[in-house]
Amino acid sequence: MGKSTFGNIFTVTTWGESHGKALGAVIDGCPAGLPLSEEDIQKYLDRRKPGQSRFTTARKEGDLAEILSGVFEGKTTGTPISVIVRNTDQRSRDYGNLATSYRPGHADYTFDQKYGIRDYRGGGRSSGRETIGRTAAGAIAAKILNELGIRFCTYSKSIGPVSISEFHPDEINNNAFYMPDAGAAAAAGAYLEECMKTHDSAGGVIECRITGVPAGLGDPVFDKLDAALARAVMSIGAVKAVEIGDGIQVSSMNGSTDNDGFCNKNGSIQKTSNHAGGIMGGISDGSEIILRAAIKPTPSISQPQQTVSKDGKNISLEIHGRHDPVIVPRAVVVVESMCALTLVDALFSNMSARIDKIKDFYTFMR
Amino acid sequence: MGKSTFGNIFTVTTWGESHGKALGAVIDGCPAGLPLSEEDIQKYLDRRKPGQSRFTTARKEGDLAEILSGVFEGKTTGTPISVIVRNTDQRSRDYGNLATSYRPGHADYTFDQKYGIRDYRGGGRSSGRETIGRTAAGAIAAKILNELGIRFCTYSKSIGPVSISEFHPDEINNNAFYMPDAGAAAAAGAYLEECMKTHDSAGGVIECRITGVPAGLGDPVFDKLDAALARAVMSIGAVKAVEIGDGIQVSSMNGSTDNDGFCNKNGSIQKTSNHAGGIMGGISDGSEIILRAAIKPTPSISQPQQTVSKDGKNISLEIHGRHDPVIVPRAVVVVESMCALTLVDALFSNMSARIDKIKDFYTFMR
Amino acid sequence: MGKSTFGNIFTVTTWGESHGKALGAVIDGCPAGLPLSEEDIQKYLDRRKPGQSRFTTARKEGDLAEILSGVFEGKTTGTPISVIVRNTDQRSRDYGNLATSYRPGHADYTFDQKYGIRDYRGGGRSSGRETIGRTAAGAIAAKILNELGIRFCTYSKSIGPVSISEFHPDEINNNAFYMPDAGAAAAAGAYLEECMKTHDSAGGVIECRITGVPAGLGDPVFDKLDAALARAVMSIGAVKAVEIGDGIQVSSMNGSTDNDGFCNKNGSIQKTSNHAGGIMGGISDGSEIILRAAIKPTPSISQPQQTVSKDGKNISLEIHGRHDPVIVPRAVVVVESMCALTLVDALFSNMSARIDKIKDFYTFMR
Amino acid sequence: MGKSTFGNIFTVTTWGESHGKALGAVIDGCPAGLPLSEEDIQKYLDRRKPGQSRFTTARKEGDLAEILSGVFEGKTTGTPISVIVRNTDQRSRDYGNLATSYRPGHADYTFDQKYGIRDYRGGGRSSGRETIGRTAAGAIAAKILNELGIRFCTYSKSIGPVSISEFHPDEINNNAFYMPDAGAAAAAGAYLEECMKTHDSAGGVIECRITGVPAGLGDPVFDKLDAALARAVMSIGAVKAVEIGDGIQVSSMNGSTDNDGFCNKNGSIQKTSNHAGGIMGGISDGSEIILRAAIKPTPSISQPQQTVSKDGKNISLEIHGRHDPVIVPRAVVVVESMCALTLVDALFSNMSARIDKIKDFYTFMR
Repeated sequence: MGKSTFGNIFTVTTWGESHGKALGAVIDGCPAGLPLSEEDIQKYLDRRKPGQSRFTTARKEGDLAEILSGVFEGKTTGTPISVIVRNTDQRSRDYGNLATSYRPGHADYTFDQKYGIRDYRGGGRSSGRETIGRTAAGAIAAKILNELGIRFCTYSKSIGPVSISEFHPDEINNNAFYMPDAGAAAAAGAYLEECMKTHDSAGGVIECRITGVPAGLGDPVFDKLDAALARAVMSIGAVKAVEIGDGIQVSSMNGSTDNDGFCNKNGSIQKTSNHAGGIMGGISDGSEIILRAAIKPTPSISQPQQTVSKDGKNISLEIHGRHDPVIVPRAVVVVESMCALTLVDALFSNMSARIDKIKDFYTFMR
Repeated sequence: MGKSTFGNIFTVTTWGESHGKALGAVIDGCPAGLPLSEEDIQKYLDRRKPGQSRFTTARKEGDLAEILSGVFEGKTTGTPISVIVRNTDQRSRDYGNLATSYRPGHADYTFDQKYGIRDYRGGGRSSGRETIGRTAAGAIAAKILNELGIRFCTYSKSIGPVSISEFHPDEINNNAFYMPDAGAAAAAGAYLEECMKTHDSAGGVIECRITGVPAGLGDPVFDKLDAALARAVMSIGAVKAVEIGDGIQVSSMNGSTDNDGFCNKNGSIQKTSNHAGGIMGGISDGSEIILRAAIKPTPSISQPQQTVSKDGKNISLEIHGRHDPVIVPRAVVVVESMCALTLVDALFSNMSARIDKIKDFYTFMR
Repeated sequence: MGKSTFGNIFTVTTWGESHGKALGAVIDGCPAGLPLSEEDIQKYLDRRKPGQSRFTTARKEGDLAEILSGVFEGKTTGTPISVIVRNTDQRSRDYGNLATSYRPGHADYTFDQKYGIRDYRGGGRSSGRETIGRTAAGAIAAKILNELGIRFCTYSKSIGPVSISEFHPDEINNNAFYMPDAGAAAAAGAYLEECMKTHDSAGGVIECRITGVPAGLGDPVFDKLDAALARAVMSIGAVKAVEIGDGIQVSSMNGSTDNDGFCNKNGSIQKTSNHAGGIMGGISDGSEIILRAAIKPTPSISQPQQTVSKDGKNISLEIHGRHDPVIVPRAVVVVESMCALTLVDALFSNMSARIDKIKDFYTFMR
Repeated sequence: MGKSTFGNIFTVTTWGESHGKALGAVIDGCPAGLPLSEEDIQKYLDRRKPGQSRFTTARKEGDLAEILSGVFEGKTTGTPISVIVRNTDQRSRDYGNLATSYRPGHADYTFDQKYGIRDYRGGGRSSGRETIGRTAAGAIAAKILNELGIRFCTYSKSIGPVSISEFHPDEINNNAFYMPDAGAAAAAGAYLEECMKTHDSAGGVIECRITGVPAGLGDPVFDKLDAALARAVMSIGAVKAVEIGDGIQVSSMNGSTDNDGFCNKNGSIQKTSNHAGGIMGGISDGSEIILRAAIKPTPSISQPQQTVSKDGKNISLEIHGRHDPVIVPRAVVVVESMCALTLVDALFSNMSARIDKIKDFYTFMR
């Protein structure tokens, strides 16, 4: 499998560097007949674009999506969908000492160790701009899921030390942090102002809730749905932990408090609680899927930091220019996108789980 | 890719049910010329076998590994290695109401929803015995890594509410919990005695530290080394969270406290701290890799639990028989195995990262 | 993907050497609910077993299939099906100079070059016995296809210079060569008698015809159905050419004679000819799929042959023991098996080709 | 694996329709440090571009390659290389009855059956223009192989009934058919003139010879090098047969005439003949790899042909416009490209075949 390809049946291959000519994604295995426009993709990209508030970088990147293939007369054709986003600002510029020094918290050193060469302009392939391709693909995946009644609710659960204490879904799009709690959002803003004054940055936690997922998705061993989600979300640059359901808390719980009972409610079997976060034995159980990702603080800070130059000299590095003091808000749609990509693949994979349903499917075709 | 297959170049395919005739694994892509015996595998299997202490189930399964292919005159030949472990105790028995009721915390319900049929004997494919195949493969992966100077130190960091406060690697194999802290192990034992009295169970946290990993393993986007590790470890039955380095803590740290600086120490570039847990931008940085997994409490408890029968009746279920009050100790080697499998694959994948090294490789061959 | 694994959704992983303890296959991605017994598999294995006539080796291998997992109460459960065939005759014996010399037409030399070590007993992994795993898996694939009305007719089209001139399907199982022409079978027998007298061997052509395949299987670019079939069949040891439909003949035809017209027959669209062999643009067109494989003569002959020893000395080698003077008849079921495996995978892959059918599928599930 | 993705380690994902905005390829897994320019790719594209002679369509497509990512300061960086070719002529035009009728010999019918929707403009995804992406990727693969001393010689062996009788490599680029025999090329030209007069088309055979391939590439079972090559080449639109070495002829040969002996020539082990075409047991043996592909006649001919309309009416169809009377010459570079892609993948895969070489590789890295 290509190293920049995600998925088994519904796949996305991303490409592009921060300051190259363009970035993009090829989405393959998308079913034919899905209505799809550039606006569908743009809506997702706009959720991760810079300049949304004073807490995100002021860089002006239009990040306009163009579809180059795979859509005909407003519908997908079943062939690969190529989406491209041109980098508008490519003028030659001074990259300072990016070429010759290793920024703490970044991948400069490891890229050099692995490849012996590195596109140092703005982080190159390891830039956060790499998530443009994921998000474009996620928009398509989410559109497919939407057709099947599956809905996402993704938001910042905490920014630095500030956690939400209330949950109002309608509030999520009303503040700069995509928090479902206006009070927490205000406190997060105040905290970030302090960080900016000290030339520092903050992290946070993103939570993704998915409803309408039918029971039966995921496979019992290595392709457990939670394993696939964990890989998908951990592959986002700044994520350092992934939790499902009660997550880390289960380690200090007891069987009697962690187990979800079952009951028959008006003829449908339901769980009496959802500590498991909607996945049992790696397979979706029909209840809400709940996932959290811990995002590290933006590594680019303008404080002096100890590091080394490429030729091995100990130096003190200050990173100038505007950088996001927190990337959590912009990463919300990226987490959602990776979950959507994972779910679509699981949905398609599950279609061949039972011989009776396969027979129905092909009988119906004739 | 097969749903029961793990890995891209070095792969393992596992098979088998808890109470079927046997369980096993086919390990493919193993390099030729590696000395390998059944004892190498048995040592790993013995670390997960039942009956090691009074805190693990007393079931007597020998779990003896037999190699059926891929090894000739004591060395691997490069062809698939088939390892089989016979289930010794297969007599027909009374499985009580396992066939007709859904145990809380188990995959009974989701298997039925997905497949419409379920081998209910002892959990079938979703039993913890499925990890036998992983562990056999992990033993081979670890042997390869050992040849390259890569070493594992894996242990229980906490059992229920009891966490280690000291770290003595030599202690790990001295107590029933594989804890590097004798005091914590004693406290964990006391805690579990209480759990057993109340017919309850406990979870815990496993930590895996890997040294000797060269910089450069892992790929920058979807196949980040941490993403691959997260998927590998989250695919183990009871794991509900995976952390790398500082993990969940990074969400409330600042850039200035989370970033690892670099320095030149006697001519070699090293990091001044290791908050990142040995992986930067998805690529190993040459320092220790640190990973934690949160394990949920054993779901089989003999308290009455609310659930439903297969035909939808609300019932109260009591699960009898001896069950592990905690599976954390037996899962230690499984976590290590999954990390070893992931690393071997990353090592092999990395061999084609640079054209100069490829040329050296093939020039040397001629 | 594992090097000994075939398929994307329905996969088979084979393992085992000619004179090891056993050979086998793990079949994964098999839908749940399929009735399956060891007899189903044995029927296929019996078609490739030795000793069927005086033109096949007299070695007595029972080749009895045992199912170790994945089947419960007579039905598949959706989990991996492990099939094992024990090698009954493993006594230590004299392998002559097999260990130290390179047999012409065999893989001895290339295995040594690749791996630096080789299980020389009876060809090891490169023995024709490797096809046992393929055939066991093929039996399961064929059973699935059968449920959907897909039927195979596979036979020897030629043995050495003797080609069939008539086509009587009922005759196929009446002669030692699986030829649909009794006269040709008699002539083939006479030809082989001559070969045996001169200590020589023969090849032949196998043809596989598949009916009942719905239009729409296969993907338009790299995963064309014909490309997948070609790979599947060319991966059988002795195959040196694969043709689809008119095959090699198309190179000297004209567009006007090679194109298949379409017509409406009683409301169904059909082709007026089938030069394409049932596949257009890589996708099945609903007509009969026709494939041919050219099989090389058995390389083991007891004439003296020029070769070298492992340490580079020029030697003359005579291979003793009974060997098949022709392997074509025994390869018939192997070709059929590889085609069946390919088709099942294409069937499952095709289920997510259209959003309207996906919606129907999941609506029906609720 | 994505359906439009080829390869396991070195992968190419192609996208684009004949009359869409653009076509392209994403090449991933390319080693870092390879010098690469747009000219390298253009040279390959020019070998397949239209308008090279009066026997190829006069359509004027510049087919100019642009590299959008993965190359920095003239060298590959190890990240995905995105190559795009804009379609210059996209004006809205009359596609006649292409939208509503099924052309014989084309994929119109099967696309409609599979997807229920079809980009009918110029064949859409099933157009020969799809090979632009393969060829761009093939140019990169060939450049890697070139660094390792591997060379291709690919040419038309026959055009319609006209086969080469001499072999002068220098002649290949001197005639419109890429034939290594000027006399045959002249005869082919005369034959095609006749075809064009009768509004008909011709096919042919392409042969690819590869020298410098080290012994040891390919894997023994499903991933045999010949199986991989067969799949790669059969996935090209018009190919209906693939042969390795003596190919179809082996079916009527004897073991004594088909087996290649070995001899020691001045200290190096060589084969005394090459009936096998450089591959034994699926593994390269160090001698020349020889492969042939049978190409069908261009299906677009301006004779009236019997077919049906999309709504099922029997009609007579005449296809107007200029079409290649033979596509064989333009397909030569496509066959070469697919073989190059296959070989690069096999080269990289082979690097982890032996533990001793892996140890050398990683020891050298430290």
